[in-house]
Amino acid sequence: MNELIEGLRQRLGERVLTDEAVRAAHRRDTWVMGELADLEERLGDPPLAVVEPESTAEVADVLRDCRAARIPVITYGGGSGVCGGVRTDGCEVVLSTRRLEGLVELDARDATARFRAGTNGLAAEKRVQQDGFTIGHWPQSIELACVGGLVATRSAGQYSTGYGNIEDMLLALEVVLPDGSVVRTRSTPRASAGPDLRQLFLGSEGTLGVITEAAFSLRPLPEASRGQAFHFPDLSAGLEAIRRCVQTGWTPPVVRLYDAIESGRQFAEWGGEERAFLLLLHEGPAARVELELREVAALCEAAGGVAAGAAAVDDWLERRNHVPGFRTFLEKGIVVDTIEVAATWSRVEALYEQTVASLNQVDGILTASAHSSHSYRSGTNLYFTFAARPEDPTRLAEIYRECWRRTMEATLACGGGIAHHHGIGRVRRDFLAAELGRGGVGLLRSVKHALDPAGLFNPGVLIPDGD
Amino acid sequence: MNELIEGLRQRLGERVLTDEAVRAAHRRDTWVMGELADLEERLGDPPLAVVEPESTAEVADVLRDCRAARIPVITYGGGSGVCGGVRTDGCEVVLSTRRLEGLVELDARDATARFRAGTNGLAAEKRVQQDGFTIGHWPQSIELACVGGLVATRSAGQYSTGYGNIEDMLLALEVVLPDGSVVRTRSTPRASAGPDLRQLFLGSEGTLGVITEAAFSLRPLPEASRGQAFHFPDLSAGLEAIRRCVQTGWTPPVVRLYDAIESGRQFAEWGGEERAFLLLLHEGPAARVELELREVAALCEAAGGVAAGAAAVDDWLERRNHVPGFRTFLEKGIVVDTIEVAATWSRVEALYEQTVASLNQVDGILTASAHSSHSYRSGTNLYFTFAARPEDPTRLAEIYRECWRRTMEATLACGGGIAHHHGIGRVRRDFLAAELGRGGVGLLRSVKHALDPAGLFNPGVLIPDGD
Repeated sequence: MNELIEGLRQRLGERVLTDEAVRAAHRRDTWVMGELADLEERLGDPPLAVVEPESTAEVADVLRDCRAARIPVITYGGGSGVCGGVRTDGCEVVLSTRRLEGLVELDARDATARFRAGTNGLAAEKRVQQDGFTIGHWPQSIELACVGGLVATRSAGQYSTGYGNIEDMLLALEVVLPDGSVVRTRSTPRASAGPDLRQLFLGSEGTLGVITEAAFSLRPLPEASRGQAFHFPDLSAGLEAIRRCVQTGWTPPVVRLYDAIESGRQFAEWGGEERAFLLLLHEGPAARVELELREVAALCEAAGGVAAGAAAVDDWLERRNHVPGFRTFLEKGIVVDTIEVAATWSRVEALYEQTVASLNQVDGILTASAHSSHSYRSGTNLYFTFAARPEDPTRLAEIYRECWRRTMEATLACGGGIAHHHGIGRVRRDFLAAELGRGGVGLLRSVKHALDPAGLFNPGVLIPDGD
Repeated sequence: MNELIEGLRQRLGERVLTDEAVRAAHRRDTWVMGELADLEERLGDPPLAVVEPESTAEVADVLRDCRAARIPVITYGGGSGVCGGVRTDGCEVVLSTRRLEGLVELDARDATARFRAGTNGLAAEKRVQQDGFTIGHWPQSIELACVGGLVATRSAGQYSTGYGNIEDMLLALEVVLPDGSVVRTRSTPRASAGPDLRQLFLGSEGTLGVITEAAFSLRPLPEASRGQAFHFPDLSAGLEAIRRCVQTGWTPPVVRLYDAIESGRQFAEWGGEERAFLLLLHEGPAARVELELREVAALCEAAGGVAAGAAAVDDWLERRNHVPGFRTFLEKGIVVDTIEVAATWSRVEALYEQTVASLNQVDGILTASAHSSHSYRSGTNLYFTFAARPEDPTRLAEIYRECWRRTMEATLACGGGIAHHHGIGRVRRDFLAAELGRGGVGLLRSVKHALDPAGLFNPGVLIPDGD
């Protein structure tokens, strides 16, 4: 162990950090169960060291050294993951990407920008905006996450219905594999020379290598940006409106439909009380935005929607990333979390009904609700929120797991997909086999074993243990 | 060998075909070098047998039997590939997907359709049109290719600028792996439970398993469909017009720009003589099509375009899939082929100039030209066409290889991608390492070895031999 740390020090000098506070700060991500363990002082031991390579070559060196010493490597980006993708147990090296930072290249003609993986998401967006572009990727974690982490977890942003998810924006990737070799995909408009190798790392959550650079295909900032809102008698009517819009070919960047519980909580002053509430943001050439506003409004009204104040959209834009931390609730004996799943249109209503009904059976449940925030021609996601306060506060973790289990089981029973954009991490790992099937899990394990035969990359995350 | 055939007969009965004519008909795809070898009577020996499984379970049985006997398996779909993806050498089993045919399920609410892999591309499109939908995928090979082959080769259709490529339409996939296990991805709107496993098979060209079913996300047939055309002083001006349109957010399904040589050949009567010629087809809600026609016209005119007859678009729609066979030319001592590559906007003009200049140095070259037919925010493809008639007709293959080598080298030198949508097959295999880099090829080989350790699946295709 000491030999490994000494070797790393010879390569990285003071960027091998072993002091207690730094190591302790890298024990976990933002998963509520990590927060709870922290609060209850039962979090795992900190890593052996935190290393901060400054170049791709240094990343490769670190990986080779760790592999030779058979020491696990956990890649740490912004630490904003909410599924337990980072959790140390005293025996790992944490590879922080924080010094792999900044813009590498921006090409205004191609509308492309390449960033080092540790670049903060909002910093990247602001940097391209200086040149008149947008990445168009607005996850709620944008102020915390880094671009490498957004790729590694298959992030989706709030503007995804029009602009796509992270995989739709990604132009090229540089990754260091567990054996220290470097894969640098070509910056061409379409990947079409064999299988798209970028896709192995989109969603790999640190289990297949370390992302060191990501290049994105940008959009010029839109000429116009306008919001509108509608309320609907119920969630079904709102879902039907979205389905018609998206299938007709209208895909505003932001399409968010809240159930009656959430709209009562957030949009009561705009008519959201006891109704479903739909927020839309339209962007693009001004004339098209005008037309889209009108045509989408007509489709919404035909589906039972009633126009509400567009001010609701401005209000949402203002407060969209302000969420209370889990800790505040935990300290009151309440466990809160969100669970995003997805399903085709014909399955999504049953999925909503069954999941909410099942969550409401949990001991101490306070609320169970959902909104849809990412739509596709074939279906949409549901983003459930639950809160529970068990009478016995030592049962928080147990109740939490029950809420997850019920949501995953209802989703699988309804034919939905168990994840939409937070990733698998630890919280969904036991459900992945049901999602991918025996063949799919076997395939994933084969790929993992081929790249990381000793299982040293983020062990315990994503890939379920063998049968 | 006989034991294997006997075993297969016990499973598939008369669907194990060993008669000379059937075996001979499965020796190759539509690659011009296959055609030439055929003409010159130096094609490899036919396969041991052609098998026609009727179910996924039968495919799995065939693969297990072949693996146990260590006999290579070549999957044969429509036979329309043009890169040498199918070529037998006397020792293989050809697995034909022709009896894995037809629609499995169409869901009108979800706008999704699932087909068995051997379903003809045009038959699939016609089937969904009966219910008011379109797949929106129109490769030139649509009358010949099957849906499994379109996925396995990462096909792009003529409507791709608006509707995307095959990977953008694919909802779910069923694949039998070399070990006989079945991967069936979930029909959810977005793949986000770990790496997107479908992507391993998109572009795998029969080297990683056999695709047995493919489900697509459809579009309702558009309310309106209207064409317009422009001529430009030169290719650069036309490329600039496309770049501005696509980056502004206008993505008509069809965007095709021909250089002066091709437009003189095809669009002379509409003003294409000695100019670049741009064809556009706009589809969608009628009011948006009207608006898009106007706004795109304004962008084209600002970039130096002059409106030409919209009739040119109708003419193209009519004759777009009528191409003369290679054989007609070969019999006259002329070798003709097309080579599609891609590059970002800032690289594509140099790529065009250098490739055409290089091709024009080839002995006996008759013509070298290109058009762009698939555009993206970051760049576009170039679809080169060349024809050469060497003085010595025995040099046809040599001259052909030289044209390919020059185009691949110019593309790589200009920073382009060596393939856009025909695949790698045998014709590009020696250039794949330069495209993917040492790390990328290593990664592809690792995945291949993990799934097909004995190298029995379509050997000689896609993946270059070891260093």
